[in-house]
Amino acid sequence: MAWFYPVFATATSTETASPTLILAGVLLTLIVIYFASKVGGELCSRIGLPAVLGELVGGVVIGVSALKLVIFPEGGLSGDESLIIQFLETTANLEPSSAEKVFDTVSEVISIFSELGVIILLFEIGLESDLKELIRVGPSASVVAVAGVVVPFALGTFGLDYFFHLPLIPSIFAGAALTATSIGITAKVLAELGQLSSKEGQIIIGAAVLDDILGIIVLAVVASLAKTGEIQISQIVYLIISAGAFLIGAILIGRLISPWLVGLVNQMKTRGDILITGLIFAFTLAYIANVIQLEAILGAFAAGLILAETEKRKELEEQIIPVADMFVPIFFVCVGAKTDLSVLNPAVPSNREGLIIASFLIVVAIIGKVVAGFTIWAQPEVNRLAVGVGMIPRGEVGLVFAGVGAASGALSPATDAAIIVMVIVTTFVAPPLLKLVFKEPVPTTETETKVN
Amino acid sequence: MAWFYPVFATATSTETASPTLILAGVLLTLIVIYFASKVGGELCSRIGLPAVLGELVGGVVIGVSALKLVIFPEGGLSGDESLIIQFLETTANLEPSSAEKVFDTVSEVISIFSELGVIILLFEIGLESDLKELIRVGPSASVVAVAGVVVPFALGTFGLDYFFHLPLIPSIFAGAALTATSIGITAKVLAELGQLSSKEGQIIIGAAVLDDILGIIVLAVVASLAKTGEIQISQIVYLIISAGAFLIGAILIGRLISPWLVGLVNQMKTRGDILITGLIFAFTLAYIANVIQLEAILGAFAAGLILAETEKRKELEEQIIPVADMFVPIFFVCVGAKTDLSVLNPAVPSNREGLIIASFLIVVAIIGKVVAGFTIWAQPEVNRLAVGVGMIPRGEVGLVFAGVGAASGALSPATDAAIIVMVIVTTFVAPPLLKLVFKEPVPTTETETKVN
Repeated sequence: MAWFYPVFATATSTETASPTLILAGVLLTLIVIYFASKVGGELCSRIGLPAVLGELVGGVVIGVSALKLVIFPEGGLSGDESLIIQFLETTANLEPSSAEKVFDTVSEVISIFSELGVIILLFEIGLESDLKELIRVGPSASVVAVAGVVVPFALGTFGLDYFFHLPLIPSIFAGAALTATSIGITAKVLAELGQLSSKEGQIIIGAAVLDDILGIIVLAVVASLAKTGEIQISQIVYLIISAGAFLIGAILIGRLISPWLVGLVNQMKTRGDILITGLIFAFTLAYIANVIQLEAILGAFAAGLILAETEKRKELEEQIIPVADMFVPIFFVCVGAKTDLSVLNPAVPSNREGLIIASFLIVVAIIGKVVAGFTIWAQPEVNRLAVGVGMIPRGEVGLVFAGVGAASGALSPATDAAIIVMVIVTTFVAPPLLKLVFKEPVPTTETETKVN
Repeated sequence: MAWFYPVFATATSTETASPTLILAGVLLTLIVIYFASKVGGELCSRIGLPAVLGELVGGVVIGVSALKLVIFPEGGLSGDESLIIQFLETTANLEPSSAEKVFDTVSEVISIFSELGVIILLFEIGLESDLKELIRVGPSASVVAVAGVVVPFALGTFGLDYFFHLPLIPSIFAGAALTATSIGITAKVLAELGQLSSKEGQIIIGAAVLDDILGIIVLAVVASLAKTGEIQISQIVYLIISAGAFLIGAILIGRLISPWLVGLVNQMKTRGDILITGLIFAFTLAYIANVIQLEAILGAFAAGLILAETEKRKELEEQIIPVADMFVPIFFVCVGAKTDLSVLNPAVPSNREGLIIASFLIVVAIIGKVVAGFTIWAQPEVNRLAVGVGMIPRGEVGLVFAGVGAASGALSPATDAAIIVMVIVTTFVAPPLLKLVFKEPVPTTETETKVN
């Protein structure tokens, strides 16, 4: 019954798949995702691990590697393999003929929710960050970011070439994948540990943001290298200029218009005044960052930073927290659900070469970022190990390298699998390591931040 | 750049439309929707009209009737006509070849957001309602609901048959469309007026919920009548039993498990404990209501009612408000955006017959529901006019009748247009009328509810 999907504009109803079935699929997927995130998060926090690790693991359990409740068509999977689609066929009269359409649409919707999740997470992180502190730690963060790109890249590329006799292009690709930092996972763990506004936290966030920009540039370089065999200088120059212009421009212009935004909000009389104004601002910067080929999350982070300087910071933060609680778990669970652990199975002979290369990449991945942390000089009070460890998780960013590399044909299946294994391991070991290196006992943070 | 849409499971990337373009389209559409909702809502609340009317009008301005920024493919429209798609083609390198796919996917995502909007609205309304009060006003609400179905149906069907000499089946269809009540619009206006928990408010909500169920039954009857020429008794019996079993079962079982849910939440240590538990509960009941061919919003409302009886009510309400502020405007703006005002243009000769029939339907629509309000007996303190006026808006529910009727071929274009005009007028006049009939001056409610 197509109750809430009215055929308003004209009165002929000829959808290819019933909209109520799509709604049913989305509701069911969200229920499963929330359930996995809470069970995983609670179990992890009980055994002293960060909750976000539990959300990732919860995602693995319901995802392609295990229960196949939440799977996505990008992996070459079809709706027949999704338990949720099968459940809809049993409970909701879903016809097999429209199952594929429902599966595709539900997956698209959940993917957008997941992307909005990381956008809202970075908006919240921006709101909780301090622009002045970020500028103050800017030099340290820049050095850490550059070292965190150069050291893993050099070690990885050289090592694969020298020890494993890989051709140059795949070595460069794998080296490039080592440069990434998943700002989402690190920021979430820092927030859980109550370390977001510490000096280490701000250095990590600053370095991770810069690393994101450097990662986009590195990816552009290696992708054009793989495709054409040469480096397109013009594209790199464009990316550097647009990234710099965007971040500086957004913050300068944003600071000019934010008092006007606050004035506007003060004039408003209807519900959701601060929240909707904040979201319009964040989504606009996210959109701009997206279309100039940066990342939407950079725009959302900049928006958060700018609004953090206004008098509305606290009120906006209070309202964004429930929204983040609703959206952010979808992102982490989906990252877990998309992780295919079958590449880790050593019983499959073809995985073994990949696992050996992966072991090397993991070592380089961890050493490279930890070394980057130790480039901070003349600040003995900074926990430099923590900064390095904070840069370890590659998360979704590292996988883009694997994806682009495989699509370009430059990577052998073993190298591709090795990159994926490296990404999985760094992503999953970073949260507990990070908790370990922030030595101070912070037993109350979890409960402090719990009730908002 | 497909940054946050990693090709996790395998590493081959062969999407038909770039996921970043879909994200860009969703972000842009949300920006436009939020902008329209705030401008419309603020302007309306300044001239003393309910903010929700402004959101509807804002939707009309950006929708199919005017700017064509937010349009939907169900109306037979294609992506070329969407200004947002054209904007993406200019700013975000969207290729015309994948424009249609991006348009379809963005529309699907926004439609799901809109449906989640009304689900979350009804969950919030349920949380703010009082089950005991609803049961106390149950007899009055039942009488109002039944009278509000019988009177407009009888007047409408008889009048069209007698005065306009329409055949019986179209007369019955138009009569059936008159029976609907849009619970979303009424509930939102009541909340804005601070009248949700008044006796009138609870009678209206109770009657609107019952009317929703009656509407589903009436639709099933007339749809099978139009299709087969006869009434399928078995289907009607099924609907009545499933609706009754669902509402009573959900509330009884829900009250049994809600103390256990509260206990579970008290054990939780991670962020979002109450909100995510509440959403899992609401989405589960919404899913069940959806698959047994009731409406998802009935499940969400029942979930809200049940959780309203727990000690977590206040905390959950505080956290659901920002989520509602984010989602609910999408629903109202989309209702406006899908409203095609071209059927109101008397300069088009073919519209005139429809407009004449529409005038009759509008009169019957208003009289029928107002009469229903006056069936409340022996309770002189109840504002019976307000109850009747609260039932006037047909909203999206009435349009389903027009859609199903047109699709079945039973309705002539003039009758179909007349139903749509009746729905538009009742939907748009109800909010100001409702504000008028609640005579007590409530100048502070808007500001009271503003800052949450």
